[in-house]
Amino acid sequence: MTDHIAFSADRHALILLDQRFLPDREEYFVCRNTADTVYALQTMVVRGAPAIGVTAAYGCYLAAREAAEAAASDGAWKDRLAALLTELEEARPTAVNLRWAVSRLRGQWQAMSDPSLDALASAWLCTAQDMHAEDIEINKAMGKNGADCIADGDTVMTHCNAGALATAGYGTALGVIRAAFEQGKRIRVIANETRPFLQGARLTAYELSKEGIPVTVACDNAVGHLMKQGMVQKVVVGADRIAANGDAANKIGTYTVALIAKAHGVPFYVAAPASTFDLSLASGDLIPIENRTPREVTHVGEHRIIPENVPVYNYAFDVTPADLISGIITEKGVLTAPYAASIRAAIGGK
Amino acid sequence: MTDHIAFSADRHALILLDQRFLPDREEYFVCRNTADTVYALQTMVVRGAPAIGVTAAYGCYLAAREAAEAAASDGAWKDRLAALLTELEEARPTAVNLRWAVSRLRGQWQAMSDPSLDALASAWLCTAQDMHAEDIEINKAMGKNGADCIADGDTVMTHCNAGALATAGYGTALGVIRAAFEQGKRIRVIANETRPFLQGARLTAYELSKEGIPVTVACDNAVGHLMKQGMVQKVVVGADRIAANGDAANKIGTYTVALIAKAHGVPFYVAAPASTFDLSLASGDLIPIENRTPREVTHVGEHRIIPENVPVYNYAFDVTPADLISGIITEKGVLTAPYAASIRAAIGGK
Repeated sequence: MTDHIAFSADRHALILLDQRFLPDREEYFVCRNTADTVYALQTMVVRGAPAIGVTAAYGCYLAAREAAEAAASDGAWKDRLAALLTELEEARPTAVNLRWAVSRLRGQWQAMSDPSLDALASAWLCTAQDMHAEDIEINKAMGKNGADCIADGDTVMTHCNAGALATAGYGTALGVIRAAFEQGKRIRVIANETRPFLQGARLTAYELSKEGIPVTVACDNAVGHLMKQGMVQKVVVGADRIAANGDAANKIGTYTVALIAKAHGVPFYVAAPASTFDLSLASGDLIPIENRTPREVTHVGEHRIIPENVPVYNYAFDVTPADLISGIITEKGVLTAPYAASIRAAIGGK
Repeated sequence: MTDHIAFSADRHALILLDQRFLPDREEYFVCRNTADTVYALQTMVVRGAPAIGVTAAYGCYLAAREAAEAAASDGAWKDRLAALLTELEEARPTAVNLRWAVSRLRGQWQAMSDPSLDALASAWLCTAQDMHAEDIEINKAMGKNGADCIADGDTVMTHCNAGALATAGYGTALGVIRAAFEQGKRIRVIANETRPFLQGARLTAYELSKEGIPVTVACDNAVGHLMKQGMVQKVVVGADRIAANGDAANKIGTYTVALIAKAHGVPFYVAAPASTFDLSLASGDLIPIENRTPREVTHVGEHRIIPENVPVYNYAFDVTPADLISGIITEKGVLTAPYAASIRAAIGGK
């Protein structure tokens, strides 16, 4: 499942497995310009912090091709391109990988000495392809580091989907689970369904069952009961942004899971690449939390589950304070408390 | 909303507002015999511990009428009726009100001196109607007692539906909210959607919005984030069975909410009538937890949300230990820790 983000050089198009329709059907969504890419990010055709980063990198290339129209008409392609990059970067607020990816390509542009648009586009395409390949390598390194946290016989709970579908492939939290499974550890997975977008029920269950990793889905409401019954030995989740002190933003409900895990003495791990750390933020309180459309809560598919005119909350993320986290699994090793120091040492220079 | 359980003497039928289809449409389900009543209880046409009790009481009357067939053929109506009562009593395992109601009517039978089937049926119908009316009175008393726990300006979180629809009318947890609202307190309600059956999204939102009590629905996953943001001042929930030590079984996810409330210093109240206490159980560990059909988790309406062949957990209830409960609101007052003593004193003789 490493081809859910694919770039077609012939078609100058980014082809995304449309995650909105999984597991019902495998449809693909084609991005040819910035509006397409922003739409894909905002509606969650593609989601998951690392996958958002890789998508944005290809999105920069598509933006460069789009800017060629401005180049042909009035020559003002630089302003046009800068504006498109900003649009891309602001598509979603919480996952820092989006801004990290766009910044990386913007930096590459600044480092080139007044490149032609063609030269810039070519350079960006190479970088996007590198980032795509790198992300898989990083996930595998993370998986290897994290697998040591998982014991033979463990049942591992995960929230949302931090899998191949959330990355360029392999996954962060699910990469750790895959690596443990590949090492021959007999593990079972409990996937929290993860309302409202149901990434656990739809995507994590889809990914793991395809590979024969035993997975059971439970409603988010069951977390307390399952832990109280001793049915969970470890929790591993992904992250969308990690502050300098180790506070981690992730899918709504993660904080709840972390509190319940703490109350039951169940180790709680976050798996995330260096690109997910935002050392400019001292703590998680500063991480912006996306508030998404009510429709995700009011409807499941086309089915309305809440009376008309009743308002809803749809915070897409929450922040888990560092003191609830047993370890942060990265490609550079498993970081532990005190996080300010361990993060600075491992991630400081990225 | 006190007519969602209605008995028609003309039709010898129990007419239930079918809660499976709310808020989409208001359909009624008619019970004419024990099989109908058991079906209505098991599929949650009607649900909520006190409503289950009242339904079961009418169900005993329907069973008596059904036993008349046996009386006509071989005269063995007593065995037939006893078997029907057992069927009724075992329809669902967790809510003790079901057994409480059937026991009460069985006791009435035993106390009558060899009644005719007609005399027994008439006596039972009167008792069922009394229990129906009593339940509303009890809820109002409970609401009045509990309203003192709610301050002007509070946002009150509730889980599942412990409202008019879960009782004969008025509600337990929502009765407390209604009473506070009727006293002129400016309160807002957050209804957790309560997967898998979505009683919060579908029923609590429906009930409260109909009465103009401000209600916002949130996914169960948002509990941690909402409390951390200081958006919740009180929690009030219902219960399906309360052990002698105050441990309370309620809809799956309640334990999670209670733990999160404790972590944030938010008072957590359980509202339940005396009939919900089961003093034969020393602690909540002994309360049987119903495991329901996977379909409630795998589908929302007709929409499948989990890949085929992926198993699910569907525990319908969990147990909140007494030490997470700030007070148990009953028609006899608000009980507080130490619960073993306060419950014995208030409920001992019911």
